[in-house]
Amino acid sequence: MIIKLMAVTDGAHDTADLLRILLKVHPYVDYVQIREKNKPAGVIYQLCRELVKEGVPGRKLWINDRVDVTLLLGLQQAHIPGRGLPLIELQKQYPDLQFGTPVHSLEEAVQAEAAGAAYSLYGHCFPTASKKGKAPQPLSNLAEIRRRISIPLFGIGGITIDRLAKLKALELDGAAVMSGIFSAKEPVEAAKKLKEECLRLEAI
Amino acid sequence: MIIKLMAVTDGAHDTADLLRILLKVHPYVDYVQIREKNKPAGVIYQLCRELVKEGVPGRKLWINDRVDVTLLLGLQQAHIPGRGLPLIELQKQYPDLQFGTPVHSLEEAVQAEAAGAAYSLYGHCFPTASKKGKAPQPLSNLAEIRRRISIPLFGIGGITIDRLAKLKALELDGAAVMSGIFSAKEPVEAAKKLKEECLRLEAI
Repeated sequence: MIIKLMAVTDGAHDTADLLRILLKVHPYVDYVQIREKNKPAGVIYQLCRELVKEGVPGRKLWINDRVDVTLLLGLQQAHIPGRGLPLIELQKQYPDLQFGTPVHSLEEAVQAEAAGAAYSLYGHCFPTASKKGKAPQPLSNLAEIRRRISIPLFGIGGITIDRLAKLKALELDGAAVMSGIFSAKEPVEAAKKLKEECLRLEAI
Repeated sequence: MIIKLMAVTDGAHDTADLLRILLKVHPYVDYVQIREKNKPAGVIYQLCRELVKEGVPGRKLWINDRVDVTLLLGLQQAHIPGRGLPLIELQKQYPDLQFGTPVHSLEEAVQAEAAGAAYSLYGHCFPTASKKGKAPQPLSNLAEIRRRISIPLFGIGGITIDRLAKLKALELDGAAVMSGIFSAKEPVEAAKKLKEECLRLEAI
């Protein structure tokens, strides 16, 4: 299986800038996670509405935390952060929706699967500027997690082109990339190169 | 009509403290607006679930901004802040729910009513610590707003016991009080005294 890519927005771009970047980045990635914790709900709503209007397929968009924005836009999935709404209650109320979630250990990964998560996002995998001073989660856990859960497993945190091979070797389903795309001088070029590496690894 | 009271939480208390205060304050107020912009959705959910479990009537609770928390708890109303989700879209998707909204001018008040708002919250009315350095909205607008809209009209901002008579004279339906309750040394006592003044004004 080819490694899937999720572009995770970093909250550092203004809305017009972000819209412009995402419209060019999305063709190179499988999913876009809108993680804009400091933007008001109305702004996130307008941004995502614009993305869909401009051709980003709704199934690609995972809005972080804001299930209400997700519902109002008629989208079918959301990413629920660690201190977000309870996954089990969400699944009960919205059985037709999918919810992804971050995990930091085998225990959390098993719980996430049991709670009906659509995917687990394990991290952070490598040292990264957005988690400065925090040691990465041990990659050694990933082999065990991979054996124990069958839902899609993504790595996040410090993902670079060189590190995609490592994730592939660990049989992960995908990589979620924040600063590797959104802090890059040329976000579109960065996304394109990540995609090319995924394709190259698949062909080996 | 007796002036209604809405207690608006100030985001300055930790969850356990807030729960304790609200359980004692709520009998003295008609509504509680949970305005905890820096608490994660999961925390707001747990807080409100606990409030309802401990006997606060659901119809009293207006959660600020988080329509998803509102829906997951099966509540019937939410307060939508200025940069929150679009009122018209919310009303379209959730015709059985009620949404209150802040206004700062006659124009906004008329728009809010046209958009189907359950109430308008005009402010800030008086100088207040939470809007330091910002001049209050002119109270003179309120007479015109009162004439032009028929949905409930609340005043917010710097509401004290002494100022309730002014709001009553302007024929407002209610007063929303944040620091007057939550920054008070004795929030429960403060709420009780506000309620007593509402009752006194009604009896004049």
